[in-house]
Amino acid sequence: MAQKPSIPKGTRDFGPQEMACRNYIFNTIRQVYALYGFQQIETPAMENLGTLMGKYGEEGDKLLFKILNSGDFLRGTCSEEIEKGATGHLAAQLCEKGLRYDLTVPFARYVVQHREELTLPFRRYQIQPVWRADRPQKGRYREFYQCDADVVGSDSLLNEVELMQIVDTVFQRFGIRVCIKINNRKILSGIAEMIGAADKIVDITVAIDKLDKIGLENVNAELLENGLSEAQVEKLQPIINLCGTNAEKIATMRQVLKDSEVGQKGLDEVEYVLNMLNVQCSMFNEMELDLTLARGLNYYTGCIFEVKALDVQIGSITGGGRYDNLTGIFGMPGISGVGISFGADRIYDVLNQLNLYPEEVTTATQLLFINFGETETNYCLPIADKARQAGIRTEIYPDSVKMKKQMQYANAKNIPFVAIAGETEIAEGKVMLKNMLSGDQKLVTPEELVSEIQK
Amino acid sequence: MAQKPSIPKGTRDFGPQEMACRNYIFNTIRQVYALYGFQQIETPAMENLGTLMGKYGEEGDKLLFKILNSGDFLRGTCSEEIEKGATGHLAAQLCEKGLRYDLTVPFARYVVQHREELTLPFRRYQIQPVWRADRPQKGRYREFYQCDADVVGSDSLLNEVELMQIVDTVFQRFGIRVCIKINNRKILSGIAEMIGAADKIVDITVAIDKLDKIGLENVNAELLENGLSEAQVEKLQPIINLCGTNAEKIATMRQVLKDSEVGQKGLDEVEYVLNMLNVQCSMFNEMELDLTLARGLNYYTGCIFEVKALDVQIGSITGGGRYDNLTGIFGMPGISGVGISFGADRIYDVLNQLNLYPEEVTTATQLLFINFGETETNYCLPIADKARQAGIRTEIYPDSVKMKKQMQYANAKNIPFVAIAGETEIAEGKVMLKNMLSGDQKLVTPEELVSEIQK
Repeated sequence: MAQKPSIPKGTRDFGPQEMACRNYIFNTIRQVYALYGFQQIETPAMENLGTLMGKYGEEGDKLLFKILNSGDFLRGTCSEEIEKGATGHLAAQLCEKGLRYDLTVPFARYVVQHREELTLPFRRYQIQPVWRADRPQKGRYREFYQCDADVVGSDSLLNEVELMQIVDTVFQRFGIRVCIKINNRKILSGIAEMIGAADKIVDITVAIDKLDKIGLENVNAELLENGLSEAQVEKLQPIINLCGTNAEKIATMRQVLKDSEVGQKGLDEVEYVLNMLNVQCSMFNEMELDLTLARGLNYYTGCIFEVKALDVQIGSITGGGRYDNLTGIFGMPGISGVGISFGADRIYDVLNQLNLYPEEVTTATQLLFINFGETETNYCLPIADKARQAGIRTEIYPDSVKMKKQMQYANAKNIPFVAIAGETEIAEGKVMLKNMLSGDQKLVTPEELVSEIQK
Repeated sequence: MAQKPSIPKGTRDFGPQEMACRNYIFNTIRQVYALYGFQQIETPAMENLGTLMGKYGEEGDKLLFKILNSGDFLRGTCSEEIEKGATGHLAAQLCEKGLRYDLTVPFARYVVQHREELTLPFRRYQIQPVWRADRPQKGRYREFYQCDADVVGSDSLLNEVELMQIVDTVFQRFGIRVCIKINNRKILSGIAEMIGAADKIVDITVAIDKLDKIGLENVNAELLENGLSEAQVEKLQPIINLCGTNAEKIATMRQVLKDSEVGQKGLDEVEYVLNMLNVQCSMFNEMELDLTLARGLNYYTGCIFEVKALDVQIGSITGGGRYDNLTGIFGMPGISGVGISFGADRIYDVLNQLNLYPEEVTTATQLLFINFGETETNYCLPIADKARQAGIRTEIYPDSVKMKKQMQYANAKNIPFVAIAGETEIAEGKVMLKNMLSGDQKLVTPEELVSEIQK
């Protein structure tokens, strides 16, 4: 017990300062979601394993945290399996619940389970932690928050437009300059169709994405290594070399994909979204059509997005896209959805690096009353009450200890105002108000105290 | 898969309406905590089992949700134990992590782990879910939120006073009339000392608590049944019959406990807290000294509190008290703490039963633009943007479907205003604004639209 206690690896405690910053991030996202008519839901931390298993690939199944059944958890297990060490099968018998791995699958489950209560289109947001048994490393945690918004039950591209407006507004409020990248799975399908290599589309986007780093020659070499023929690589050249404005890129791709119906459909969708954002909406950040954007999740079927910070070297800080059949896995096919997810942990890092937190975010207590003993405290309590009623976050130092220690407490907590009331001040019905930043002191009435702090 | 998906028993989904109400509760509590200088922290959902085991009694250990180790979780287990079905021992080998059971033990762990970073006294609040493998039943869940505030590192009774002010303010803001009951473990120790039955103190308070229901004769009978002697029961009579104002009760108890030093200390503490609240603070709710208040948790050492709603039949909706050595279990003795915990689920039930939610809590989207097709939508988008910039929560119906369906959507979501822009309105540069409550329609400019909704 004398050993210093610790927490599981890959998890974190958030102290007051970190929480203030994190709340600023969550509240900003929350407010913008609400401004666009999204409503919050919450789902349980634990889901039945049947809901989670098989939704994130084989690797994902292994990364699920499983919860040991309560009571006699060995009942029904087979001792042969235990001896053989058949952990996979055995885990399924020892555990029937797991911690949620993301917010998308629980949301799909929610929509299907509550379909009778929901009015479609349903716009929900959800800000909750998720858990993954990943190997912990810098910037990768076993518990982290996701901040998702999705619309289900509407095929309209207006949803994509509004989600991009949300992204734009959120980063504008943070003061983070970003590039919003857009692509469309149908364009990628068109490219695969054109060169006759549907199974290679991920390799192709990965190779093309390296153009800036390794140059055209090496990109082509990598494509050949990945099993594409000379003819296929030749056909990809206009795509690898694609440049210009979004409109120019679309025009080029119209030509390249002229024989692909699905490719043209993808270009239609991207063109509509970009046009609407440019013409009808006042966007602050730049949108860029980026054909190398593929996103790992293969449930996406239409537009896909990713957001990169311009002034900090860091991976994608927001992403999303359209998925046409997520609820199908729970027996409710034909419901289209589109969503985005803000990466709160990375946004936290970006705001820190750029020092963009507004000052008021990290000011907790605004006013501290120094404690000189019972008489003085009795005098201060009603004044502290008045300050609180005016909305001022106020403390009375609870113990009558040395003044120096109380001032150190005010400094450590970054409290901007300290109120002092000794015999003289009490006799006059006033308090001495000290501005901790400037060092100025001022004798004020209780009413003046409130107005002094509020200005 | 065709089977309707479900969630683990004892857990809940919270839909948009419930979330709006829950957020109102959490935000109210959060704001009052902040007003008194408490700062938020968060700890991980998972703690090492070593942190949790042995802190909640034998029964509590069984109610911990344990997380199966990742990878080869059988490594190091002994097949003999598996065959013997020695689940307790085996669980400790299969699992090294568990879900937190309350917020108090993780907080004590936090204080000890981060002691070098903390400035004492440390006032923290924490609003997070906890998990207990209890048998689910009405009003008892396996996942529920706790809303705790604690001060550690200060012995001053001013902390008790401020915590009672917080309780008073929170319930005043909710509009719930409550009685705040106070007692002190030292008074209970004094009583036990007086009659020479330290081990019987819980039985005694349970029996006395039944006075109103079963009458004096039956209370005395129960005390005898519990093994007290006639002489002991005789000595308890002034306590069982204790009545009057708080001051009268204290005066009586001063006499009854005249030979108990610890009892007198407990009375001093209660008297100080009650006096301060009556004289220096403007309390809205009544405080009552209730000697039958014992609270289950035996780590309490000083004042204990409990809050009962006056207008709804329900158990305690808030509780707390002082504990003198919570961090001692993690090797850091001598740190006193005092805290309270609001029962959000019960407060939710009380607010529902008394119908006390402010109307704006359950209004999500304020304005819906009807979608008549592309041209009209292009016209509406910039107007919707203006509304959002003015802080109005606004939606554009994403699909151009029948007007009736869109109006049904507005009704289902309780949206108070609908904006309609067809050929005529567009020609005039206006929109038709319909008040969904009154049915009134009004042709307005985009600027008028904003001011109309804001008033």
